[in-house]
Amino acid sequence: MSKASRKLLTVVAEASLESRLVSLVHQAGAKGHTVSPAHGEGPRGQRFGDMSGGNIRLETVVPSDVAEIIIEGLESDYFPYYAVSCWLSDVEVVRDDRY
Amino acid sequence: MSKASRKLLTVVAEASLESRLVSLVHQAGAKGHTVSPAHGEGPRGQRFGDMSGGNIRLETVVPSDVAEIIIEGLESDYFPYYAVSCWLSDVEVVRDDRY
Amino acid sequence: MSKASRKLLTVVAEASLESRLVSLVHQAGAKGHTVSPAHGEGPRGQRFGDMSGGNIRLETVVPSDVAEIIIEGLESDYFPYYAVSCWLSDVEVVRDDRY
Repeated sequence: MSKASRKLLTVVAEASLESRLVSLVHQAGAKGHTVSPAHGEGPRGQRFGDMSGGNIRLETVVPSDVAEIIIEGLESDYFPYYAVSCWLSDVEVVRDDRY
Repeated sequence: MSKASRKLLTVVAEASLESRLVSLVHQAGAKGHTVSPAHGEGPRGQRFGDMSGGNIRLETVVPSDVAEIIIEGLESDYFPYYAVSCWLSDVEVVRDDRY
Repeated sequence: MSKASRKLLTVVAEASLESRLVSLVHQAGAKGHTVSPAHGEGPRGQRFGDMSGGNIRLETVVPSDVAEIIIEGLESDYFPYYAVSCWLSDVEVVRDDRY
């Protein structure tokens, strides 16, 4: 079957940021997202989510230009202020109209 | 150490489909799977799992031919009827007899 | 924006191993990690986590040499004794000093 290339963007942040991050992702053009509960630790011993009901791991599968817009939003509004991690990987999707 | 190439297939669906999806994956030839709880939203505002105890995020690491069989099963029996997302990525494994 | 290449290492194991695995990962040089709850099944019908409060899915984004050190630790101290799965994939990060 034919497949299309997309980017999988994974963002880890404190749970209290979920609704704002979901808005950022969808305003950038993402058609969907998935959130899983998480906990962990970042650089400098930052313990994500200890005070705020844990951590979230938000994933969205998007075209690369949408990923760039989301990352720009993270850079301007989140990275300076919050313990937020993110990484990008290449994925293939089957139903490309969904992503 | 030597590594082998595999596909990581990630499927997001409503939690009530878990046992059926696990059967599909193992019948296709997967030797293992991992399920994490999740919630989220897909295209057209489909809110995964709102009514059924949430969402699952199912992962399986498989040879590419097994991934194709699973995707064919998703295309015929799930995509037309359910809000199911899936994506494929390339991964490396160490103990290749396990995948 | 400029990006840097890293490895995403995902380890699935019984939850009782979490603190030991987190130590392994950080001693190898990882600056952060994320843990999500999970359940599943491995080869030979090994049901991860049935007896011990479930399973974990531990992720860490690291340089490739750190990934190798972690995998060597898994090979010597975990693979022979526990139902542990792991896989590696290529990811890009934005803030490379964090990984």
